[in-house]
Amino acid sequence: MSDRLLETTVGQFLDRLASSAPTPGGGSVAALTGAMAAGLITMVCDLTIGKKQYAEFEAEAKAIRERAEAYRAELQQLAQADIDVFNQLSAVYKLPRTTEADAASRRAAIQTVMRQATEIPLRTARAAAALLPLCAPLARYGNRTAVTDVAAAALLIRAAVPAALINVESNLAVIEDQIFAREARAQAEDLLMGLDGEVEGVLTLTRTRLKG
Amino acid sequence: MSDRLLETTVGQFLDRLASSAPTPGGGSVAALTGAMAAGLITMVCDLTIGKKQYAEFEAEAKAIRERAEAYRAELQQLAQADIDVFNQLSAVYKLPRTTEADAASRRAAIQTVMRQATEIPLRTARAAAALLPLCAPLARYGNRTAVTDVAAAALLIRAAVPAALINVESNLAVIEDQIFAREARAQAEDLLMGLDGEVEGVLTLTRTRLKG
Repeated sequence: MSDRLLETTVGQFLDRLASSAPTPGGGSVAALTGAMAAGLITMVCDLTIGKKQYAEFEAEAKAIRERAEAYRAELQQLAQADIDVFNQLSAVYKLPRTTEADAASRRAAIQTVMRQATEIPLRTARAAAALLPLCAPLARYGNRTAVTDVAAAALLIRAAVPAALINVESNLAVIEDQIFAREARAQAEDLLMGLDGEVEGVLTLTRTRLKG
Repeated sequence: MSDRLLETTVGQFLDRLASSAPTPGGGSVAALTGAMAAGLITMVCDLTIGKKQYAEFEAEAKAIRERAEAYRAELQQLAQADIDVFNQLSAVYKLPRTTEADAASRRAAIQTVMRQATEIPLRTARAAAALLPLCAPLARYGNRTAVTDVAAAALLIRAAVPAALINVESNLAVIEDQIFAREARAQAEDLLMGLDGEVEGVLTLTRTRLKG
């Protein structure tokens, strides 16, 4: 596999994921899951924009599309960033700790990289969660023939957010900076709050559109 | 994008998904999501097998790995099959319906392909759901440092199953064969039953392992 995730083929990516190679792992998968959700949202916007019967929704569809594409770009970057920071983390864990000074600087380096490694899945969760408010209007007013793709996007978001956050939680166990940890935990809680209910709302809207 | 999904790069796949091109859509994404879950399960098995401290679980880890890889292969095929059948469906919708005979044979062709197009996401949901029972033992007894990846797999499964089934539901609205439709609906209900509870169980196990 190329070191650049986006330049790897889907088949190679899945093979590499399934291997015992340290990357990619759950953090990149969460980001890619969010990116797929963003891609589905953009697709439904594209199937809505320019269609006479959805003309009243066109301006909003364009605005939704723009935001979805911005989050997709961010999530694609985060999928790569998660791999990069994990490799950095492996490197600092290998630093020498023979002298006391070495051990202290290794420990400090681990803490620094671990905070970065925690911020990445936190940003992933934030970007994925930010996609969810785009789904309800699109499920309600977007192209009816593509409404199941909006539902799929909402379901992917419901996976991507907690999948990213479980990596945050796991890293926090190692982080000594308690202010950072408390702040991260508060953000994680905020991101999970109401997530299930909002996804259920999109699914209900989808079923209503499918019937009518 | 190459017509072969697995040979496409991840970046091209996401760009193509985001485009208004008819494929890939939510069905392939559901299958790929399931394949990523399978890949994560295999990875955790690989990080468990051959490690002294997990020796008692080794035989089971090997058995789990074998099943996860079989389902991954199936889900990867289904991701492609969903694209192929969707293209077939577009083709039969374009068949002529100028004479009454033409219209009748077009309608029959649509029904045939639509049943195939329904079986694919149903098989996707089945394969993704079959991965879930592999997660709990792996979260409990597998390599502790990779337990968050088991949790991520469970979350992906909870997205893949209903994302596939919403495509089943949407296709059934067009299918005239009521026996087929009833059977498919019953299977879909079975697959969803207990899914959330089982995923929550894996997440609880994960949190317990993270603490201890």
